[in-house]
Amino acid sequence: MLTQNQIHIRVRYAETDGQGYVHHANYFHYFEQGRVELLRAQGVSYRDLEAKGYFLVVADLQCRYRAPAKFDDELILRTKVTEVGKAKVHHSYELLRGNQILSEAKSVIACIDAEGKIRRLPEELVP
Amino acid sequence: MLTQNQIHIRVRYAETDGQGYVHHANYFHYFEQGRVELLRAQGVSYRDLEAKGYFLVVADLQCRYRAPAKFDDELILRTKVTEVGKAKVHHSYELLRGNQILSEAKSVIACIDAEGKIRRLPEELVP
Amino acid sequence: MLTQNQIHIRVRYAETDGQGYVHHANYFHYFEQGRVELLRAQGVSYRDLEAKGYFLVVADLQCRYRAPAKFDDELILRTKVTEVGKAKVHHSYELLRGNQILSEAKSVIACIDAEGKIRRLPEELVP
Amino acid sequence: MLTQNQIHIRVRYAETDGQGYVHHANYFHYFEQGRVELLRAQGVSYRDLEAKGYFLVVADLQCRYRAPAKFDDELILRTKVTEVGKAKVHHSYELLRGNQILSEAKSVIACIDAEGKIRRLPEELVP
Repeated sequence: MLTQNQIHIRVRYAETDGQGYVHHANYFHYFEQGRVELLRAQGVSYRDLEAKGYFLVVADLQCRYRAPAKFDDELILRTKVTEVGKAKVHHSYELLRGNQILSEAKSVIACIDAEGKIRRLPEELVP
Repeated sequence: MLTQNQIHIRVRYAETDGQGYVHHANYFHYFEQGRVELLRAQGVSYRDLEAKGYFLVVADLQCRYRAPAKFDDELILRTKVTEVGKAKVHHSYELLRGNQILSEAKSVIACIDAEGKIRRLPEELVP
Repeated sequence: MLTQNQIHIRVRYAETDGQGYVHHANYFHYFEQGRVELLRAQGVSYRDLEAKGYFLVVADLQCRYRAPAKFDDELILRTKVTEVGKAKVHHSYELLRGNQILSEAKSVIACIDAEGKIRRLPEELVP
Repeated sequence: MLTQNQIHIRVRYAETDGQGYVHHANYFHYFEQGRVELLRAQGVSYRDLEAKGYFLVVADLQCRYRAPAKFDDELILRTKVTEVGKAKVHHSYELLRGNQILSEAKSVIACIDAEGKIRRLPEELVP
C-alpha cells in the first residue's frame, strides 16, 4: 500500500489575500487535494468511497507556516500516511517551493457513515 | 410579500485577494446571503425549503463591478425580487459603501428537486 | 498571438457546497485560471505584468449554468479572447465535462495601474 | 486591555461543502474575524495597523473539530488572547452552537513589517 505521494500545485490568484500571499486557510484545500491524490495513486477513488457510505472528516489539524506562498508559485506537496487506526488516519504534509519548506502540517481524519457515526475504515485504507 | 431587503456586510480579510480588494468571485457569496436574508425577512427559512425538497440553484448571473471593496469595509447590500415565474426567481442586487455603488448584479434562480428536475416554486415564494 | 486555450481542471472537495455540486462562485476561480494560463501559453506571465504595474481587474461578468459539476470531475475549460480594446479585454469561456457544456461565460477585464486608474494594455496583450 | 470577546456568526451556504457541513478550512475565516473584532472591541482597527506597517500573520494553527456546523446555524465564537510576546500573540477559540462546542482552536500570530521582517508588536497590542 502506497503511503506517500507528491503533487504539484500552481497557486491561483483567488487563493491570495490582501497581504499578497496565499491565505492561511487555503493551505487546507491543498492538503485535502493531497489526500485525495494519494488515495487515487493507491487506486482508490474518494468519490467512490462516499458513494459506498464512507465519509472521511477532519477531526484534528495542525499547521506551521514558515514562509509565505505567492500567486503563480509552483508548489510541491508531500502527503504521507503516518498512522492508521480502526477508524482514523493520520497524515503529515510538507509544502515546498523548490527546496524551501513553506509549511508543515498534520491531520487526523475520522471515518463516519452517512448519519455521522464513527465507522471502521474501508478495507482499501487499511495496510 | 416582501420583495426587497437590505443587509449590512463587513468585509473579511479572507475575502480580499492579492490586489488588496475583495476578489470578484466573493461578491456572489454576498448576493447569496442577500437572498437567504430576504427569504428570512419574509418568514421563510431556506434551510427548511431544502429539507422539504426544494433546491434553489443559480442558472444565470451577471455582475458589473464599478469600484472595489476593501477589507473591513461596511457594505450595504440591497436585494430585490424583480420577477417570479413558475420555477424561477429573478433578483437584482446593489452593493454600496455609503452612497457609492460598488457593484450591480442580476441573477436567475431555478427551483429543482433532489434529483435535479425542475420543480414548481413552493407557495411561500409565489406572490 | 494566441487567442484561445484549453486547460484541465480537477474539481476539489472544498469547491463543492451543501448541494453536492461546485458552488456557483467557484467557477470564477476556474475562469481566472483560464485567463492566466492563456497568457502563459502566449509567453506572458500575469505575475510579471503586475510587477510592471499592470493590474487586470474584472469589470463585467456573465455566466450561464447549464449543468452542475461534481467533486472529482475532470473538467475542460476553453478560454478565448473575443475582443481587445485600448484598456480592455473581452473573454468567453466554455466549461465542459467530456462533450457536455456545463457552463458558458463572458467577461470584460480592464487594465489599471497601481493607483486604480485606467491604463493602456501592455504591448504583449495587443494583437 | 480587553483580552476576550464573543461574536455571532451566521453560516453562509458557500461555506458548506458536499458533505452538507461547513468545510474545515472555513473555520479559519471565522477565527480571523474573531481576532479582528476583538481588536475592534479594544478600539484598534486592524486595517489601520496595516496602514501603519504592522502586518499580523498566522505562524501556527491548531484546530480540533468535535461536531459539524451546518448552513444557517447561528454560531457563537469566543476569542481569547492567551499570551503576548514581543512580536507574537497567542489566541484560543471556542466555536459554539448554543451550549455545544463545535470546535476548539489555538493560533500564534506574528507581527511583521511590509518586507516580511519580524517587528515588535504595536503599543496598542501590548498589555
